[in-house]
Amino acid sequence: MNPGPREEEGLKTNQRITITEVALRDGSHAINHQYTADQVISIAKALDEANVPYIEISHGDGLAGSSLQYGLSRTNEMELIEAAVSVCTASKIGVLLLPGIGTIRHLNEAAKLGIGMARIATHVTEADISAQHIARSKELGLHTVGFLMMSHMAPPRLLAEQAKLMESYGADTVYVVDSAGALLPHQVTERIRALTQSLSVPVGFHGHNNLSLAMGNTLAAIEAGATWIDGSVRCLGAGAGNTQTEVLVAVLDRLGIETGIDVYKIMDLAEEIVAPILLKPQEITRGSLILGYAGVYSSFLLHAERAAEKFGLDARDILLEIGRHKAVGGQEDMIMSVAAELAKGKREAPV
Amino acid sequence: MNPGPREEEGLKTNQRITITEVALRDGSHAINHQYTADQVISIAKALDEANVPYIEISHGDGLAGSSLQYGLSRTNEMELIEAAVSVCTASKIGVLLLPGIGTIRHLNEAAKLGIGMARIATHVTEADISAQHIARSKELGLHTVGFLMMSHMAPPRLLAEQAKLMESYGADTVYVVDSAGALLPHQVTERIRALTQSLSVPVGFHGHNNLSLAMGNTLAAIEAGATWIDGSVRCLGAGAGNTQTEVLVAVLDRLGIETGIDVYKIMDLAEEIVAPILLKPQEITRGSLILGYAGVYSSFLLHAERAAEKFGLDARDILLEIGRHKAVGGQEDMIMSVAAELAKGKREAPV
Repeated sequence: MNPGPREEEGLKTNQRITITEVALRDGSHAINHQYTADQVISIAKALDEANVPYIEISHGDGLAGSSLQYGLSRTNEMELIEAAVSVCTASKIGVLLLPGIGTIRHLNEAAKLGIGMARIATHVTEADISAQHIARSKELGLHTVGFLMMSHMAPPRLLAEQAKLMESYGADTVYVVDSAGALLPHQVTERIRALTQSLSVPVGFHGHNNLSLAMGNTLAAIEAGATWIDGSVRCLGAGAGNTQTEVLVAVLDRLGIETGIDVYKIMDLAEEIVAPILLKPQEITRGSLILGYAGVYSSFLLHAERAAEKFGLDARDILLEIGRHKAVGGQEDMIMSVAAELAKGKREAPV
Repeated sequence: MNPGPREEEGLKTNQRITITEVALRDGSHAINHQYTADQVISIAKALDEANVPYIEISHGDGLAGSSLQYGLSRTNEMELIEAAVSVCTASKIGVLLLPGIGTIRHLNEAAKLGIGMARIATHVTEADISAQHIARSKELGLHTVGFLMMSHMAPPRLLAEQAKLMESYGADTVYVVDSAGALLPHQVTERIRALTQSLSVPVGFHGHNNLSLAMGNTLAAIEAGATWIDGSVRCLGAGAGNTQTEVLVAVLDRLGIETGIDVYKIMDLAEEIVAPILLKPQEITRGSLILGYAGVYSSFLLHAERAAEKFGLDARDILLEIGRHKAVGGQEDMIMSVAAELAKGKREAPV
């Protein structure tokens, strides 16, 4: 291809950025976990041809996420992983594992299929539950990533302490994960800096677009020293989706930052292979915006809407209150009691 | 409404930001200039209720843009302006005027209908053609904005010189306009700083989302001192659309920056009134991405695709070459000759 336009100024970085494509994992949320083996094969093959270093494949909530609670996968994820491994020559396949949802057994099973990376994900304040899984992943010879979800809920120093724990367990890379798309660029800068200053291993960033800042935050992360970055082709991911990979590759090319990925090929696969399978456009709707604004998990939205109806409230007021309580995944029960409290306050002091 | 979550840190700014909503002008590109009077009335009324300071209404290419070349408007823009003025109590209506497309006569006509703002737009290196229109707008008692389009094509110093010209003609505000969505955050910072350092009047920023950076660039602009910002509800605008207004208002609220706009009302009108009239989702497609990557006008895309077919080239190679030539609107003819040159080079030195 014709070399693209380069900037004279550029970011103050000369790192090479390693991109992990998450459309086949985080993106499965956006298509209700309905990936077929044929779809995964054609997407993985095209990503491999575009020279994407890592491709993550799992249920949206990680290995063994397929369930009534998190949504049933159409195709067994091990089948999808095996199919992708078989068609990739350059790209390595990775998996996501949330201890408590997936287990060491699932990790072993995926390792046998030939994956090259495992990402062990915990809530930002719960890194300690990742010790065994990180250790096992290392034993299996995998590139092992610590993945700190809902990173907006911890101030930079606490986040760095948790990251340090994951590093001590053996993680090769630790990620700041903006699960709710709630971080603002200066907050990303502070968090990535806190990690790069206290860790010896590389630092990564995973962004969501609920506040239309996935790309802006990603550039802030890179400028602050992050060298591992997640992207999702055509923005396919939970909430408003992730940092759009083909756009990211073009932007980094403009900045003269190496990713090793072919700009035209990644644009083409986004348009020709991924876009046609979207169930709905990845726009920022009122629903995804309020999740980023309140800083809460997307699974809370439906619960809040139900509680709002029951108590005659605006679901947004409930979500903002839940965000202030720093509720974590699994605490959906809290929503009804928060709504009841809000309704009581409203009756006592009508505005 | 429930006050949203505030940040302890925040941007280093305590300016109040004045937002201009452009969905009824730039957004007309996204719906092929098919706005009806009823649609404009319902949108303007809702924007007025949400307390948006300025609403721009014109053909996408400014007053008198309705033509075979730029696309025919379904409804006469003067009728739309008159209808919007009649339903707004807080919001002021503004118009865009590109000298050469619109004339003083159109400006006079719009002024008679009760508008409060006129924005005089020129290519970034052609501010001198705005002198008469800016002067007339001032005589009419309008808030008068100089609007420097394709600002990515001029380095900061040249951009500041052009802005200074507009200020000398009487402009009350001068905008850096990223028409092609081609600027990166550090380039926005440099440009806004150059203007705030050399002008006495406020500086504005108008972003496009072709590189997924409309919001990131807008925050960079505000941090660098811009106080007038354009947004478009539900991203409705040319290319990949503009900075999404309802998201921007939520983000600025999180930062503790005042806009005077009601966060819930602007979210609601985006979802309930604007989203249903979209002809297609405002995603970043291969087409809009390449425009931002190459830094060219959206009108060049179709011409490049035709030339690519004729000469057996990739349209992207042509657009990147056109971007290097810094071609401006109206220079679509250049595309065939650039394509012919590229095809010749390809034959002589096959890759």
